[in-house]
Amino acid sequence: MKKLFIFFSLLISSLVFAKSSENIKIANTSEITEDATPYVLHKILENNNAKSIVFEKGTYHFYPDKGLSKFVYLSNHKDVFVKLAFPIEGFKDFTIDGQGSTFIFHGKMIPFLVQDSENIKIKNVTVDWAMAFHSEGEVIAHNDKEHTFDVRFGDEYPYDIRNEQIYFVKEYYEHDLGQTINYDKERKSIAYNDKASTPISTTARSSKKHNIDKIKYKYKVDKHGLTLRKVGVENRIRVKEIEPGVVRFYNHKKALPPIGTILSTKGQQGENRVAPGIRVTYTKNFDIENVTLHHAGGMGLLVENSENLTIDKFTITPSGDRMVSTTADATHFVGCRGLIKITNSLLENQLDDCVNIHGTYQEVVEQLGPKKLGIRMGHHQQEGFIIGRKGDQIGLVKIDKSFSPYHEGLTIESIQRINERYQIMTFKEDIPSGIEVGDYIENLTAYPEVILEKNVFRGNRARGILLSTPKNTLVKDNYFQSEMEAILVPVESTKWYESGSQANLTVVGNTFDNCNYGGLSRGIIRFHTDEDNTSIAFHNILIKDNTFKLFDNMVMEVHNTDGLTFENNKMLSSDLFPQLFPENPAFVIKHSKNIVFKNNDYKGKATKMIESDGSAVNVDFQ
Amino acid sequence: MKKLFIFFSLLISSLVFAKSSENIKIANTSEITEDATPYVLHKILENNNAKSIVFEKGTYHFYPDKGLSKFVYLSNHKDVFVKLAFPIEGFKDFTIDGQGSTFIFHGKMIPFLVQDSENIKIKNVTVDWAMAFHSEGEVIAHNDKEHTFDVRFGDEYPYDIRNEQIYFVKEYYEHDLGQTINYDKERKSIAYNDKASTPISTTARSSKKHNIDKIKYKYKVDKHGLTLRKVGVENRIRVKEIEPGVVRFYNHKKALPPIGTILSTKGQQGENRVAPGIRVTYTKNFDIENVTLHHAGGMGLLVENSENLTIDKFTITPSGDRMVSTTADATHFVGCRGLIKITNSLLENQLDDCVNIHGTYQEVVEQLGPKKLGIRMGHHQQEGFIIGRKGDQIGLVKIDKSFSPYHEGLTIESIQRINERYQIMTFKEDIPSGIEVGDYIENLTAYPEVILEKNVFRGNRARGILLSTPKNTLVKDNYFQSEMEAILVPVESTKWYESGSQANLTVVGNTFDNCNYGGLSRGIIRFHTDEDNTSIAFHNILIKDNTFKLFDNMVMEVHNTDGLTFENNKMLSSDLFPQLFPENPAFVIKHSKNIVFKNNDYKGKATKMIESDGSAVNVDFQ
Repeated sequence: MKKLFIFFSLLISSLVFAKSSENIKIANTSEITEDATPYVLHKILENNNAKSIVFEKGTYHFYPDKGLSKFVYLSNHKDVFVKLAFPIEGFKDFTIDGQGSTFIFHGKMIPFLVQDSENIKIKNVTVDWAMAFHSEGEVIAHNDKEHTFDVRFGDEYPYDIRNEQIYFVKEYYEHDLGQTINYDKERKSIAYNDKASTPISTTARSSKKHNIDKIKYKYKVDKHGLTLRKVGVENRIRVKEIEPGVVRFYNHKKALPPIGTILSTKGQQGENRVAPGIRVTYTKNFDIENVTLHHAGGMGLLVENSENLTIDKFTITPSGDRMVSTTADATHFVGCRGLIKITNSLLENQLDDCVNIHGTYQEVVEQLGPKKLGIRMGHHQQEGFIIGRKGDQIGLVKIDKSFSPYHEGLTIESIQRINERYQIMTFKEDIPSGIEVGDYIENLTAYPEVILEKNVFRGNRARGILLSTPKNTLVKDNYFQSEMEAILVPVESTKWYESGSQANLTVVGNTFDNCNYGGLSRGIIRFHTDEDNTSIAFHNILIKDNTFKLFDNMVMEVHNTDGLTFENNKMLSSDLFPQLFPENPAFVIKHSKNIVFKNNDYKGKATKMIESDGSAVNVDFQ
Repeated sequence: MKKLFIFFSLLISSLVFAKSSENIKIANTSEITEDATPYVLHKILENNNAKSIVFEKGTYHFYPDKGLSKFVYLSNHKDVFVKLAFPIEGFKDFTIDGQGSTFIFHGKMIPFLVQDSENIKIKNVTVDWAMAFHSEGEVIAHNDKEHTFDVRFGDEYPYDIRNEQIYFVKEYYEHDLGQTINYDKERKSIAYNDKASTPISTTARSSKKHNIDKIKYKYKVDKHGLTLRKVGVENRIRVKEIEPGVVRFYNHKKALPPIGTILSTKGQQGENRVAPGIRVTYTKNFDIENVTLHHAGGMGLLVENSENLTIDKFTITPSGDRMVSTTADATHFVGCRGLIKITNSLLENQLDDCVNIHGTYQEVVEQLGPKKLGIRMGHHQQEGFIIGRKGDQIGLVKIDKSFSPYHEGLTIESIQRINERYQIMTFKEDIPSGIEVGDYIENLTAYPEVILEKNVFRGNRARGILLSTPKNTLVKDNYFQSEMEAILVPVESTKWYESGSQANLTVVGNTFDNCNYGGLSRGIIRFHTDEDNTSIAFHNILIKDNTFKLFDNMVMEVHNTDGLTFENNKMLSSDLFPQLFPENPAFVIKHSKNIVFKNNDYKGKATKMIESDGSAVNVDFQ
């Protein structure tokens, strides 16, 4: 029953004497490639002065079983334990060079975790997972009378049906039927007007609650957090296997998803982002060059509290027959500074935005001394996030009164993370007397300049790019085909607690090719706040020399903006999709001033050009 | 909408200048007692040279919201993040004195976490939780035809019914219908013959699995772990609310639980132990004196890798109308050394054993060098456990051949915890050539001497005490009334991976008052291994001067034992319960030798005294 010992590992024991090596070389041998995790891990752990790790070209598997375990607070993900082969912590001037290799990961791993480091580069590598963190199946039949539909799930997506619910079982992981969306198989992109049929309405109110309203909490609780949100909610959808691999869905509320579309599902929100592709924190000068990510169980690249991010020739695209690449944003930057530069990249088919750049709001819950505040994280996926570092300037915001800070003169002395939700922040200066419970803080230092140039953004769920930084931002010569807004400039203060009212934005030379085809009535470029007030959030915007191909009317929505010039843009009519909202105008302007249109060329279908609340608009359409 | 600031906390800001205080005093004022967590926490964090923290007598609430968050690997619990008010880490000569105070905890907190400390005492305090981690309800009706029963849940136990499943909602926590057992309301103890009707049969096989058998794992996986065990399993029981607070249970397989009994449930195994009362690790000389725990969401006292534990006048007992005290063992010791002494204590009504003392087996998965092994944790609730420290002696065991190590000469040089399951262990000496994959290691140094004297063990689910240490163990003048074995001396190598074949055990002067009434056919004292072999596990046992009150026949089972004397014991017949197994003998002896009975007084009901496989038994019954 017991096997004789196999190993006398060349792999690990040899390393004890290799601490000084400057350049780690990894050979393409089967002892390593079949599970490269223990070998690579020990090389990394024992050579933190190394300048590079270079892989002989090949295909390397990385299993979690012997990976380094680490708990990570991940912004906009579930905070989890992950396994690592590349814990790049405290490295300086270090390059990971795959030399064209492919790395196949298994289970809940973060391929590259970079932390407290400086001058780090990842290049020439392709990353995929053996089994995806999401599942896909083709809609093959409808029963209109019963309002049911049938989906065939391929061999790649094993499932288990429990109490009429479907669970997709992976290596070391499973997910339920949550966060569904349809893909168009031919276009290999989100299906036209997908909002009509998805997401599948998975939840309903539970049948009986008893005494739950009598539970008293001393402090504010988050009813959207992972525990409390279960209360009062049950499964609405029921499924039944019709034949092996084919599952019928009952009780869907929306339209039946079209036959031939590919239904994707990744499990319920909050539970399904557990393994981003590349995660960078507290790092200065991080480069990606010529890297392909076919998948991640979360975002492709997640960067927090870092400085100078240079992303060139970064490709997010699904492998094989999969419709979906990463299961969340392709790239996401929180609390970064310096310059974020993304060029020559293809970010497609992921299940959330292509680029999202923002800071965070955190909520004041109490004053603990003249220079000391108790702070609460607003969103459960911001748990554990540290807003800044010693010396950063903090602004105090009363968001219902103004998007700009009412006080800017506070310098961080220290931050003590008491727990996931609660931190104690000490400032160098006294806190002003006007501060109130419920005020927000934002870090005024931790906003980046941004250059997004010559990229392709398409095929994904949700937006092209989200921008929330007041610093110089250039969006130039990119191609967009997004099912929602191509460019969303938001203030998301009430749900996501994301800060950074955009200013100094130049959008020039881009092609917007039939965006907003998913079914929402929104501007392709959209300036929007979720606070219902008239104050100004956005400043100094130039949108120039862009081409819009338009199957539908709406080009741009502008809310709460002071100073926007829309100049020399071409707007062409397209028949790529049937029109969705023929009654819409081309432009909507609200709570704004100094909005200038000049020298634009409009050939779209809209019968009304501008719908405005009377904000100052100068129009010069050709 | 926004409140003006309330606080200018005396509480925390004043502490900045208090670092040198030797004795922390906590006043019984409402600012503190309404949530003592932030005040106590900062006192502890900022005074780690303090010699005591003394509470003015009163009732203090502890909420998690401002508690220190810490991830804890907890043996025999779920590994979780907990919130702390008392993080006693790196303290020396430190006493927590409640002076008769009551501490009421809220949510997933560990009241006292003691780590890397020396000479720590907790005294004169009563601990309870505002809302329990389990739930209780009275069985009020049967429907024999439908085989259903109705349970009334009091106001203390809010619930939510989702898809015909019941979930009990607490502050910051919820549990499902798992791990049920009946209590007898009058006796305030586990119900007689409860095994006939509980646990409620909550699970069944799921209806359809597709392709799951095609998932290939490179390494051994734990099908009992929290992810994989969900596969292929669905809910069997269905519930329906009959009237507010009264719930009908359908589809139960066993007998209906008797009307008038109290059904307790704590949620499914593996998920439900998240907040032990007192947790001690890597600590030398830890004392408990005059402490009452009314509840914990897990064990009362969990001690790992510590030395010299002195527990006097420790009371585990439920508060108010609750039947259940702690939801797992009253006390549990893993990998401890020195002396464990428990005296004058009352451990009752918890949902698992009163005392459990053992080491761990860990599995050899590979040899990585002449002195280096890769080791795997066997049970998912041993994840993260470190078996020993530098200098400890490790034994190598081939458990199917012998319970004794085949090699004892390995000294720990270092242990590297790569992840929850996998560690790399380096020894001072070369590993012997006979080692094989699947061999076990055990720590021969980390076994304690034990004294259990003048304690009362009763009312709980499961055993009185479990003993697994080869060192001197004295069980003297205790009272037992357990629903399973009073004393279990096991080798649990295949499921729980618990090591420490008992030797040198003296059981003297105890009263065993109608134990084993729960419905299992077992010895009141039981020596048992879960390996099916004839080799000797247990040595040098003396059982003398004890009184057994017997409603049933079986007194003792002896397996795999060499050298046991059962002498001068009184066995009296009792009618407290109806007899369950009238065909049983009084004693069962198997795979043993040198078993001596002398000078005993037997007045029980058994018609056959000894059932033996021919092991050497000398009998002298009076």
